[in-house]
Amino acid sequence: MRIEVITIGDELLLGFTIDTNSAFLARELAELGIAVARRSSVADNRDEIAREVRAALERTGAVITSGGLGPTSDDVSVEAVAVALGRELIEDASVIARMEERFRAMGNKIPLNRMNRRQALVPSGAEVLINRHGTAPGLWIADAADRVVVMLPGVPRELRGIFVEEVKPRLARAFPAGGVILSRTLRTTGIAESVLAQRIADSGEGFPSLAYLPGWEGVDLRVTISGLHEQEASQFLAVSIEKLRRITGHHAYAEDATDLASVVLQEARRRGERIVVAESCTGGMLGARLTAIPGSSDVFLGGIISYSNDVKNRKLGVSLSTLETHGAVSEQTVLEMAAGVCDSFGSEIGIAISGIAGPGGGTAKKPVGTVCVAVQARGTTSSATRILTGDRDEIRRRATQMALDSARLLLSQSGEVRQ
Amino acid sequence: MRIEVITIGDELLLGFTIDTNSAFLARELAELGIAVARRSSVADNRDEIAREVRAALERTGAVITSGGLGPTSDDVSVEAVAVALGRELIEDASVIARMEERFRAMGNKIPLNRMNRRQALVPSGAEVLINRHGTAPGLWIADAADRVVVMLPGVPRELRGIFVEEVKPRLARAFPAGGVILSRTLRTTGIAESVLAQRIADSGEGFPSLAYLPGWEGVDLRVTISGLHEQEASQFLAVSIEKLRRITGHHAYAEDATDLASVVLQEARRRGERIVVAESCTGGMLGARLTAIPGSSDVFLGGIISYSNDVKNRKLGVSLSTLETHGAVSEQTVLEMAAGVCDSFGSEIGIAISGIAGPGGGTAKKPVGTVCVAVQARGTTSSATRILTGDRDEIRRRATQMALDSARLLLSQSGEVRQ
Repeated sequence: MRIEVITIGDELLLGFTIDTNSAFLARELAELGIAVARRSSVADNRDEIAREVRAALERTGAVITSGGLGPTSDDVSVEAVAVALGRELIEDASVIARMEERFRAMGNKIPLNRMNRRQALVPSGAEVLINRHGTAPGLWIADAADRVVVMLPGVPRELRGIFVEEVKPRLARAFPAGGVILSRTLRTTGIAESVLAQRIADSGEGFPSLAYLPGWEGVDLRVTISGLHEQEASQFLAVSIEKLRRITGHHAYAEDATDLASVVLQEARRRGERIVVAESCTGGMLGARLTAIPGSSDVFLGGIISYSNDVKNRKLGVSLSTLETHGAVSEQTVLEMAAGVCDSFGSEIGIAISGIAGPGGGTAKKPVGTVCVAVQARGTTSSATRILTGDRDEIRRRATQMALDSARLLLSQSGEVRQ
Repeated sequence: MRIEVITIGDELLLGFTIDTNSAFLARELAELGIAVARRSSVADNRDEIAREVRAALERTGAVITSGGLGPTSDDVSVEAVAVALGRELIEDASVIARMEERFRAMGNKIPLNRMNRRQALVPSGAEVLINRHGTAPGLWIADAADRVVVMLPGVPRELRGIFVEEVKPRLARAFPAGGVILSRTLRTTGIAESVLAQRIADSGEGFPSLAYLPGWEGVDLRVTISGLHEQEASQFLAVSIEKLRRITGHHAYAEDATDLASVVLQEARRRGERIVVAESCTGGMLGARLTAIPGSSDVFLGGIISYSNDVKNRKLGVSLSTLETHGAVSEQTVLEMAAGVCDSFGSEIGIAISGIAGPGGGTAKKPVGTVCVAVQARGTTSSATRILTGDRDEIRRRATQMALDSARLLLSQSGEVRQ
């Protein structure tokens, strides 16, 4: 079973919006054994959308569109699909009723305006898919030849909600799978893509459909298998991941979508210890990443953003002589920051970052990208310096990853020592 | 002039990577007066890539591809384009030389392996585009009929670098513009899309090609004009933005890509005052956003991440009776947090956030999404409570936006009062 995804919107072709919906849909469809044969993006133009939908229907018989269902006059997707399928537009009373109800629930006194009413127009014969997350409903439009067009709003939260609640069950019924498409991903960090590739080639192990996915967090290795039944596919993937774990050693930190922050929180939880942070160039990103994980409050207490040297000295107790002799970006400074924030908050584990994120501030000895991290965990400490690549945002994100990886390695090692 | 963009990679169709390259290319091309006619994504499959490139060349005569230039065996884009154009692959000595030089400069002792060497294979007659940000070079492949295929690596940082440094000047020479495509965007926050649309409709003003771009930061309003010469286009846009500013009033906070954090820093700078933050549910995101702006260190001192109540009490001086009587998520608590962080750091402006980001922790009186923010600026304070929608990540991001907007309004108002 194959499907095409068409994302609609001038903003996509003009580059003002990044298309995250296609990726979401692809992952969800894979779980149903449905492959995305092709993705395309077209403008908010009735004729172009109609042509694209017709062509996709001819190729695969199944299309999901996103976008162009909003209340404004540039939203023409419903009209376009009605044209493509030769159907009339009619006002759906259930859509109007649900919109009024939703406005009341939100305490919204504003009556439905004509912009809202446009969103209740649907092609005749369409099944309305309830949108619990916004006002634009989705649509499921099937024809006698078992072809189907699914229309979803472009706002990611709304698209995701309708897809999971309404579309996925209908697709599973309409297209029962002959086999699944399953993937597992091993996440690595601190090792270059070409070095990884050489190690894997040298191992003599074969991995059908192994993808290298490099990013600021490191290189993810994804193994995919399709066509098998679920149990066989799972077994195959388990064996592949085990082999990759052996080849990548301590560089592998987690699987699938698990963030390194979550691994570090788990290590602290296992040790019964609490984490605090002291951040300079990252300005709060490390704390933000740790608290992005639901339930982090049992382990994470908080921290100090010490953007100025004065705050490093007064709030974290970094000595003025360290700052003068070694500079704010030095292992000595981050070690004192980590110790200082542990003392100040009465916590066992402290993670500290200081660096030069750029674009200014670099010197010959400490170029832009120079980052120092330190970790303190009860008696033990570690520190490291690296020159990270990328722009300001990427250097800051890589710095949080570097700090978290130092914490993972220290916490797992000193955990073993203590056993 | 129209061009097609083809992004290549299994990971795009499987949904493991979000395509940010298409958006970048579209924006850059618009500046040259080149419109993206269509975007598509195909798998790492030689025949499918070759077919897609041939079809796109027939339609528009100009194609940019991204991805599939890496060192590993799943990277087949160069082979595919060679097939599509009927050219042989040859090893390019200049690519090998530059790769060796780059490895030396990075202090990398690892010799070039056969994975690296694959990246030096190019279709005969191709012009190699220097990649200063990685090892995979880009390619410019023109033919006698003035058709062109530009191949770029998929890693965003590398693609961006090669595009700006090598491709943009070549495109400007090859396809001199008959007119530009220009856009300007007015950014609004704190007002719903349908309310905005109704206000604009009621104003009686016409805006050709007005796009509503809703997101967690608010609704951006983008006006686009094409075909005119640069000066006329700029004048037209200036008039349009002025009209939109009148219609949207205090909801408009900036233009184009300017972040609200940057507006707040600028207000503080104008007043000669410094900013500190106190964050609970956002865990450092507000500090991270302020420090994402280069040069923020002249105004932003730092702050305290007070994830636990104990830290709110001991480090920020929030009274235990406030925490017991009103709870950690209350305007009383955030007002004390803002006052406490100003006192502790000796700063003039304090911004505080506390909320329930979910998925757990909600109650009937304070459901998930409840967020309180407070701002203190010398004598004046403001506070607000709202119920924000979305998942944990979205609620936290909306909370930072809400806090920054409160700061913007307070700083600009109290600035006026003092004049």
